[in-house]
Amino acid sequence: MQQRNQPMGSMQDWTLRVARLIDHAAREHPTREIVSRWADGSETRTNWAGIRHDALRMTQALRRIGIQPGDRIATLAMNHHRHLVSWYGAVGVGGILHTINPRLFEDQLDYIVNHAEDRVMLFDKAFAPLVARMKPRWPTVERYICFDSGEPAPHFEDWIAPEDGQAQWADGDERDVCMLCYTSGTTGNPKGVLYEHRSTMLHAMSAITPPVFGMDTRMVMLPIVPMFHAASWGLPWAGAAAGSKLVFSAVNEGAVLCDLINREHVTAAAGVPTVWLALLQHVDATDGAIPGSLKTIVCGGSAMPRVMVERFMRQGIRVNHAWGMTETSPVGTAGTETLDWEELSLDQRVAVKAMQGRPPFGIEIRCVDLGNPATVLPRDGKSAGALQIRGPWVVKRYFKAEHDAVGDDQWFDTGDVGIIHPEGTLRLTDRTKDVIKSGGEWISSVELENVAMGHPAVAEAAAIGIVHPKWGERPLLVVVTKQGAEVTQDELRNYLRQHVAKWWVPDAVAFVDAIPHTGTGKISKKDLRELFREYQWPV
Amino acid sequence: MQQRNQPMGSMQDWTLRVARLIDHAAREHPTREIVSRWADGSETRTNWAGIRHDALRMTQALRRIGIQPGDRIATLAMNHHRHLVSWYGAVGVGGILHTINPRLFEDQLDYIVNHAEDRVMLFDKAFAPLVARMKPRWPTVERYICFDSGEPAPHFEDWIAPEDGQAQWADGDERDVCMLCYTSGTTGNPKGVLYEHRSTMLHAMSAITPPVFGMDTRMVMLPIVPMFHAASWGLPWAGAAAGSKLVFSAVNEGAVLCDLINREHVTAAAGVPTVWLALLQHVDATDGAIPGSLKTIVCGGSAMPRVMVERFMRQGIRVNHAWGMTETSPVGTAGTETLDWEELSLDQRVAVKAMQGRPPFGIEIRCVDLGNPATVLPRDGKSAGALQIRGPWVVKRYFKAEHDAVGDDQWFDTGDVGIIHPEGTLRLTDRTKDVIKSGGEWISSVELENVAMGHPAVAEAAAIGIVHPKWGERPLLVVVTKQGAEVTQDELRNYLRQHVAKWWVPDAVAFVDAIPHTGTGKISKKDLRELFREYQWPV
Repeated sequence: MQQRNQPMGSMQDWTLRVARLIDHAAREHPTREIVSRWADGSETRTNWAGIRHDALRMTQALRRIGIQPGDRIATLAMNHHRHLVSWYGAVGVGGILHTINPRLFEDQLDYIVNHAEDRVMLFDKAFAPLVARMKPRWPTVERYICFDSGEPAPHFEDWIAPEDGQAQWADGDERDVCMLCYTSGTTGNPKGVLYEHRSTMLHAMSAITPPVFGMDTRMVMLPIVPMFHAASWGLPWAGAAAGSKLVFSAVNEGAVLCDLINREHVTAAAGVPTVWLALLQHVDATDGAIPGSLKTIVCGGSAMPRVMVERFMRQGIRVNHAWGMTETSPVGTAGTETLDWEELSLDQRVAVKAMQGRPPFGIEIRCVDLGNPATVLPRDGKSAGALQIRGPWVVKRYFKAEHDAVGDDQWFDTGDVGIIHPEGTLRLTDRTKDVIKSGGEWISSVELENVAMGHPAVAEAAAIGIVHPKWGERPLLVVVTKQGAEVTQDELRNYLRQHVAKWWVPDAVAFVDAIPHTGTGKISKKDLRELFREYQWPV
Repeated sequence: MQQRNQPMGSMQDWTLRVARLIDHAAREHPTREIVSRWADGSETRTNWAGIRHDALRMTQALRRIGIQPGDRIATLAMNHHRHLVSWYGAVGVGGILHTINPRLFEDQLDYIVNHAEDRVMLFDKAFAPLVARMKPRWPTVERYICFDSGEPAPHFEDWIAPEDGQAQWADGDERDVCMLCYTSGTTGNPKGVLYEHRSTMLHAMSAITPPVFGMDTRMVMLPIVPMFHAASWGLPWAGAAAGSKLVFSAVNEGAVLCDLINREHVTAAAGVPTVWLALLQHVDATDGAIPGSLKTIVCGGSAMPRVMVERFMRQGIRVNHAWGMTETSPVGTAGTETLDWEELSLDQRVAVKAMQGRPPFGIEIRCVDLGNPATVLPRDGKSAGALQIRGPWVVKRYFKAEHDAVGDDQWFDTGDVGIIHPEGTLRLTDRTKDVIKSGGEWISSVELENVAMGHPAVAEAAAIGIVHPKWGERPLLVVVTKQGAEVTQDELRNYLRQHVAKWWVPDAVAFVDAIPHTGTGKISKKDLRELFREYQWPV
């Protein structure tokens, strides 16, 4: 075969290294702003040129304290521009950026910092008490830096102040690791996913395409999703590739977000359904309106309820309902308009957007039989199965694992249950561990929840399987009613009977004050099952 | 440094091979149509699944006749779906696709086929007489296949008919060469530019982003630019990555294009200014309208005159004025809306769109002093200099060349003269060999032409430098007037005086019936200079 050693001529050498993103942004979009809204209400404004300059100064500060390529540099912080600087600084020195979720249990924080062998820890002062408690358990951490205070560790700005930014990014192989995120697994120890320079770059190039986030320099993006959640969906990288304006907020309250979106003319925002719920609740409570500058919302992390999709669409806002996970960098699918969009009714459009969209170029998905994974299911819009994924930004092996997380054909098991429609759109119906097996058939807990959420009296709903003497398992619906609203079990079951198969209708409804959530804002089925461990079906 | 040999964990292996494009299109957008309008007016309809199936059958046919990876497979054809099939088939077998411009001189055709050592030649029957003449001079070509006839060579469809498509794409390194295009250089022999699988894939991923062509599956793209011109601007590759509908026409007459755009609901079309001129002339001659489905036109190859930009914009059509060359795969810059777009008047918007846009992520441009290339010029919107470019899809070394075409820092000299504005927008003012040097100062021939084209009586204009006893060179304006229109030299010079510096105004105007064009539709300054070789300034 014709190869490198046969000098035919060629294209230029250009390694897929992450520093190229910030170099591009600072060169072509130097004055495009990066705005930070801090927890205390104060704001900081910088731009892509400023981010690059500070990131270069951070590489100098890191080199001064002996950080080597491959060393792990941890952050324990909310979203702000200094956190962004630290991403490019840590990766730019050839290090591995390790973003930590501060909402994890302390035993998990103990585990992951020691597993990662983090050498440097950059944190927000809001987490100073947590850091103080954890410090004795984190022997590998040699240096603490505080992003927004001079106490109890050096202030980030003071730390980089002596540096002049006259430095070079670390060079290296494009398959060097640049980032580490641990999954907040519900069983066993968290698992570390290692992103490479190459995978991060291909993911960023895909993220800015129209079938994913469709980004350009005119976009003003508010990544509500925290930077410690699956790389904030890659937006801090993609934003540089596109030269977009980025707006960060250290708090995610509805009032703060609405105000920020209005003042900064945010055109697109990305977050999990719970933050959108908070935003809508604020709008309702204040008789306000969804900010007019907002053109697109990206929703992921868990499925957006259909009623919420419809509410945004009725306001003329484009809903981009996406799906992904830490193991997929994270974009797996994203929701775009279908070919027949112009002919669809609002109701049909909502149905399309309530699904999770299609894989962008690079990603492959398939569903296999839940009982027999060797059988690949047809894309018929009906067959629900275990969702598998593969592609250039999908995990092959977890950090320090002894075996690959995938087989020879690279398919990765997502733990989700999905249906693929003929035109390729993915509809998630459940997590494999949450699906309810009744009389040998599968019932989707997520679909039950989605329908229940459509009832005007329901604020939040969750369905779990409860052991049943005859059917193996039967669904129990757990409901939080809206303030001031009332609904009976029978009314709810009748309502459900109109929307799902008769045998799917939950045998009982339990009314509760609140449904437990995970640190990432999803319904915690694990906690819910624990709560209803002693539950007995009414006789 | 942490490397592959230290098993930390990782992302999946995924080589950047071109076959992934057609696999994606056939998997996710199988029924999205590919329409061909042949020279005889007949039409063929297939889709991405059909293209892939036929391309696989072509790999089987190629293997049957002993084609090996690295072998060159040539095409001499206009735009149609079989030409598209042959792209993916030639590249899919591991071969090097060599698209030949049938409008080249026979000596050039002789040179490039022998230089490329093409083994297979696929051609349109329209070029059968040319093939018959050239055959004795092409000893390396073992096999001729005709795309649309059984004479004088086997018909493409018959050739692949025995194959079943049950085959695998050739595997290999992502830096293997997949395509070869010769520049239609005006001096010396044509030079071969080799595109690699990797460069082609990165170019395709960039091409679909909003700052370039912004493609998705809803787009209906008509690549008017021939497939033998700089890979049809990469649209046959990018179209697969996006799953767009593609519409091809073997002829580029205004009437045919308007009809096709209307009937196939084409939303975007890409071509050189001369085809847009032909389309507008057809619209005017028939008292017709620009087809309403058309939302975007991509214009490249040479600068689109300002009056044409304005005409399209007044119709509500988005003008994407791009720049590139064979050596740059070809996208170098593309024209998007500026940040202050909403505040601009139509006139200001036209001025923005009359420029060549900005480099997408991956590409770097700069201008250096025309007399002293070591001096990099500021991005001040004023300093004109020699345009240089570098990036992952820019040539390093021409085919079989003994030396790189670039220095250690990879900057490639484009031969264009440009100005870069503070926000990064490129404005081309000339070719370095066409710029007119008068009294030690530079005059842009392209700017003179652009202004002259704004005069209502001028159909086409070209400016060239003529030796002058006092000033070294002075500009001569060559003009074709519109049918029925009249204008004098003095009237034109007065008109120009209102728009350019006084010392730029051409000393004389020569009225001609036609201005010579190159095979790619650009004004041929070389032929024009030849025509006016004996010209004497009026005394």
